[in-house]
Amino acid sequence: MAVRIAELSRRTGVPVPRIKYYIREGLVDHGERTQLNQAEYEERHVRRVRLVRALVTIGGLSVAETRDVLTRLDRPSPPLDSVLGEVMAAIGRPKSIRDDAHGRAAYDVLEGLAERRGWRFHPENPSVASVVEAIAVMYDLGLEHLLDRLDVYAESAERVAAADLEMIGRLAESDAILESAVVGTVLGEVVLDGLRRLAHADASGRMFPG
Amino acid sequence: MAVRIAELSRRTGVPVPRIKYYIREGLVDHGERTQLNQAEYEERHVRRVRLVRALVTIGGLSVAETRDVLTRLDRPSPPLDSVLGEVMAAIGRPKSIRDDAHGRAAYDVLEGLAERRGWRFHPENPSVASVVEAIAVMYDLGLEHLLDRLDVYAESAERVAAADLEMIGRLAESDAILESAVVGTVLGEVVLDGLRRLAHADASGRMFPG
Repeated sequence: MAVRIAELSRRTGVPVPRIKYYIREGLVDHGERTQLNQAEYEERHVRRVRLVRALVTIGGLSVAETRDVLTRLDRPSPPLDSVLGEVMAAIGRPKSIRDDAHGRAAYDVLEGLAERRGWRFHPENPSVASVVEAIAVMYDLGLEHLLDRLDVYAESAERVAAADLEMIGRLAESDAILESAVVGTVLGEVVLDGLRRLAHADASGRMFPG
Repeated sequence: MAVRIAELSRRTGVPVPRIKYYIREGLVDHGERTQLNQAEYEERHVRRVRLVRALVTIGGLSVAETRDVLTRLDRPSPPLDSVLGEVMAAIGRPKSIRDDAHGRAAYDVLEGLAERRGWRFHPENPSVASVVEAIAVMYDLGLEHLLDRLDVYAESAERVAAADLEMIGRLAESDAILESAVVGTVLGEVVLDGLRRLAHADASGRMFPG
């Protein structure tokens, strides 16, 4: 099949101007030019536009982050172990770790947690800065009691991560592995956060019936 | 204590123009005017600016969502049960549920999950639309195998939500309960997502040593 941009838009649910923007930004390939001002798109364009939409619109990645991730996904037969790490790193931009008193206290909390659970990760993993920042703000607001739940959070994160990796390990082909890892990480967060809020709704419904 | 805006900025880490923007948008009260073009701020302003920063900058809420949440937090001695639900609803804007074939398939998946786990929630809970959208995109991309992990996600979400509610239940005073619920929900997501990525890093390090 080869379709015009209007059909590409219809099949992906992404408006034409936004598809053109993705093409300008290098996230989606140009179509095959057939006549002046006409281009035709293939099945691979449909898939690519859907993937970009998943990362940008639903996952909340920036265009720059999305470009980094896709560049790594696009390399021909990459060595799986190195690319998996690179792709995951590209999903979060490096951030500096907050370095005032509450930032350092938060870092100690995270370090203690990692030690208790035997987690090993690179200290420059962008998630370190995110977690430290969120914990530091709990200290800023005098809401340290929110940290009581940290080990429950970590245990749940560990179970979810193990299920993710187990699923990835069952996939045969490396393309699908990388795409699944990226989409699974980004959309997995949306699902996990949404389910947590639904579970909250259920639990508060039981706490305050009626 | 009563301080100028420069000191308010220093103590909260929020730049002066941004504080002025929060004041213009009604998220933070005006200071007490002392002379022409001078205003003084109290301890409650420090706390409020930090809370707004937590919700907007770290939690990623929009200014409109933040205003909704704060309006509900600000009511004098509100009945806890109704306000808790309202505050949680204000964190997520109502969205329409995707209604094409994959959207309906995704809704069925979520409904089945809720039935298996005995969860009850309002069908207009904004998280329903988010979860349905994310699952529908997995169908769009032909990555349905990502759904294998859904029950593990739900179980983890349930444990985390139970720990959250248990923590809330231990708090004595209703102001702290509402603020803790809001901050705990918004920053809790940042912590949970970050820990999941760190657990991923640990698990892939074990899968691909070196």
